[in-house]
Amino acid sequence: MAQSLRMTAMRWEGWGDPARAISLPPQLRALLDNALGVRPTGRPAGPLDAIELPPPAFDPSGLRTIVGEPNVRTGSVLPAGHEEVLDVLRWCAQRRVAVVPFGGGTSVVGGLAPVRAGFAGVVALDLARLDRLVALDPVSRTATLQAGVRAPAAEELLAAQGFTLGHFPQSFEYASIGGFAATRSSGQYSARYGRFDELVVGLRVATPQGSVGLGRAPRSGAGPDLRQLFLGSEGTLGVITEVTARVHPAPAGYTHAGWRFASFPDGMGALRRLAQDGPLPAMVRLADEYETALTAPGIDGCLAVVAFEASPVPAVEAVLRAAGGTPLGAEPGEAWARGRFQAPYLRDALLDAGALAETVETATFWSGLPALYDAVRACLMDNLGTPPLVLCHVSHVYPTGASLYFTVVCAQSGDPVSQWRQAKQAVNAAILAAGGTISHHHGVGTDHAAGLAEEVGPLMVDALRAVKRRLDPAGILNPGILLGTTVGP
Amino acid sequence: MAQSLRMTAMRWEGWGDPARAISLPPQLRALLDNALGVRPTGRPAGPLDAIELPPPAFDPSGLRTIVGEPNVRTGSVLPAGHEEVLDVLRWCAQRRVAVVPFGGGTSVVGGLAPVRAGFAGVVALDLARLDRLVALDPVSRTATLQAGVRAPAAEELLAAQGFTLGHFPQSFEYASIGGFAATRSSGQYSARYGRFDELVVGLRVATPQGSVGLGRAPRSGAGPDLRQLFLGSEGTLGVITEVTARVHPAPAGYTHAGWRFASFPDGMGALRRLAQDGPLPAMVRLADEYETALTAPGIDGCLAVVAFEASPVPAVEAVLRAAGGTPLGAEPGEAWARGRFQAPYLRDALLDAGALAETVETATFWSGLPALYDAVRACLMDNLGTPPLVLCHVSHVYPTGASLYFTVVCAQSGDPVSQWRQAKQAVNAAILAAGGTISHHHGVGTDHAAGLAEEVGPLMVDALRAVKRRLDPAGILNPGILLGTTVGP
Repeated sequence: MAQSLRMTAMRWEGWGDPARAISLPPQLRALLDNALGVRPTGRPAGPLDAIELPPPAFDPSGLRTIVGEPNVRTGSVLPAGHEEVLDVLRWCAQRRVAVVPFGGGTSVVGGLAPVRAGFAGVVALDLARLDRLVALDPVSRTATLQAGVRAPAAEELLAAQGFTLGHFPQSFEYASIGGFAATRSSGQYSARYGRFDELVVGLRVATPQGSVGLGRAPRSGAGPDLRQLFLGSEGTLGVITEVTARVHPAPAGYTHAGWRFASFPDGMGALRRLAQDGPLPAMVRLADEYETALTAPGIDGCLAVVAFEASPVPAVEAVLRAAGGTPLGAEPGEAWARGRFQAPYLRDALLDAGALAETVETATFWSGLPALYDAVRACLMDNLGTPPLVLCHVSHVYPTGASLYFTVVCAQSGDPVSQWRQAKQAVNAAILAAGGTISHHHGVGTDHAAGLAEEVGPLMVDALRAVKRRLDPAGILNPGILLGTTVGP
Repeated sequence: MAQSLRMTAMRWEGWGDPARAISLPPQLRALLDNALGVRPTGRPAGPLDAIELPPPAFDPSGLRTIVGEPNVRTGSVLPAGHEEVLDVLRWCAQRRVAVVPFGGGTSVVGGLAPVRAGFAGVVALDLARLDRLVALDPVSRTATLQAGVRAPAAEELLAAQGFTLGHFPQSFEYASIGGFAATRSSGQYSARYGRFDELVVGLRVATPQGSVGLGRAPRSGAGPDLRQLFLGSEGTLGVITEVTARVHPAPAGYTHAGWRFASFPDGMGALRRLAQDGPLPAMVRLADEYETALTAPGIDGCLAVVAFEASPVPAVEAVLRAAGGTPLGAEPGEAWARGRFQAPYLRDALLDAGALAETVETATFWSGLPALYDAVRACLMDNLGTPPLVLCHVSHVYPTGASLYFTVVCAQSGDPVSQWRQAKQAVNAAILAAGGTISHHHGVGTDHAAGLAEEVGPLMVDALRAVKRRLDPAGILNPGILLGTTVGP
């Protein structure tokens, strides 16, 4: 993972480090050209400095007093710690300036695109200066990290003392600790280490109404677990400034192996065995026939990639074998590991080539998983207006169910934003009808706000709004995110 | 567990079945007489029919229309299902009649003793008729149970299909499924099966403002996990009418074994090893020197009781041995198992003998556990006015910490309620100062409402109140419980 620890600034109009941009593999290129009819659109993004922003509609000089002159930039404020975050929030609340907490900027659901109407302006509250490992408790195996620590830096800080968070989502190279908590992030090795919301034992949060500190014990019977209100709150209820999370002794390394299953249901059965009766490896993910054909040509059926701390565990292999799996050796697994953070670069290359490339993810219980798969796949096949490529894999497993991650690629129509919006709306309806959740780990942002209300019901969205009104009466925190546009001052 | 499945009505002034009342063992009797100076108080409770209740201050005839004539008793209403619960809540909200959801009646923290001032009356909403196993999903390994199903009945219903919840708190013989969820209950085998809040995947809740249904997937990234608002809400935010929970294939049985450690810290180290690096047995609990001396005389040091599904696991035994444990064979473990639900009967016998007998439980992270133990023990030794017997055991373990369960016995003063209240107040302050939680699994009720506000801060109590105002605007649900007395209509 050494290479991924080098941090660079993110491209403004795409993912990651321009030096690591990739070209489309020739077979994919041919598929786009021939089967999907993808053609260049001639709509490049253009350089950032060609965009002129209007001056802010509020006088930011007060913010300079709080965080210091160099830490107020065009539309961006960089506080040094919890107390400065509190001061900035109070200042903004008094002036009706909306605040977007900014960690890694990796949201794919419009989590950083707030409603502006009704506000004097919007500032990005950039948490980059909250970059310290505050404490490590090797006895309890917990670490307290400031929210702005980027994931690669967190791993470096912990590795120096022999520990790891073990949290490696696809956004790993840019994502931040606070963002992991605020979005209930899932890492690729969640089978071993748990989701990030399961790793969190304590939170420090700054709200316009004051500070919150939660988490005095691993588990408590003292009322509802209030940490859970902020996990998944996506910056709308407060700004998470510190996270205390479980850590694990860092393993010497990981090994990855490929396994073949004759069909997607066969593979699902094997994953269910591992999730229900164990032992679970660090990761087990299963591609459907379509994703296998494209990403691992030559494997007839479905590829499962299994990750282990250190070396393969014979008891896991025995379960896979008993469930009909055939071992394919290390290479298909290591190939996955080499490309594990590359999908966003591939997406950009697809967009550059004129393709529409999007993802949809959901989860449900094991008994409903096949029907959910069929419903979402059928919906994606039918609702894009051009013939699409639809790929899917099971990305995370639990004793009672699992998640499905779909990738769709097709030719862009003349209005690709509407093209995707229409398909996504149909997919969301299909997910809800099939009993799935509107998002397993991408979050709500603006894209899923309507779906959230359908999933939990308007009464519970209102209950969350009631919490927001208490903690953020002026409604300045990430307006329009999560709770939709009807919340406001 | 066959014996425990026979249900009888609970004594009104004490625990359980009068036929199972126990006498104090002679050694304990002698200890009370000689070391603690316990004397009979001559304050027996008297028969229930000697108590005259005033007639209700509201006309309950409307309730008879909703649930049927025979299901409205003195101060008690028995709805048949979710819709009738909704109707009763609406009826009561309109008339400002407070509602106490009643499951098993096993609260030890005043969870069933609401504030009456300001209300036209109080009804107990007895969920005994919500007694069905609604669905069992053997593929996903989940069961949907109505909230009024008592734990022994739930186990019988599930056992008929080969499954178990595996949830056996000390209150097991009387507690209900809805109560488990509403109080974040912890079972004795939580190391194997998880706490009840970890078993819950779905909830159906009736509120005065309508129905709530949550839990479409094992895990979701769709905003905060709103199930967590109702888990631990103790009937203040809504009435849980159905719970969907994880189930496990029922093992053929359990075995229990005793292990000896030279000291409490030595034993804690062994428990931490198991909790952090595994493998975890079904249960591992560790008595301190004082509890060991009283409950397992002859064992020099500290007794750990370890429970296994089926037979002892050699890998667990290897960890215990490596951490300094000495195996004591099955008998000390099986003795614990025989008496596992007897403590409440023992408490009643102690009270009858004129002793004050109470319990205090808390939890924190491993690094803080020894200091928390010292602080609570010292506080109990010093604050009862008479020399007490203070016993403690570690009852539940997690990767990052564990819980401590204290039992205290001493002579009653002339005003034993004030005697305990004063000691409890000092203990709560000591727990909070030492970084512990005010309750690991007894809940908040009325006893811990002030402590909860100190633990999570007044701002978060207010956030919960905001949720309550949205779901229960008339404030009729369990007034005074959890959120203290300042919430009201």
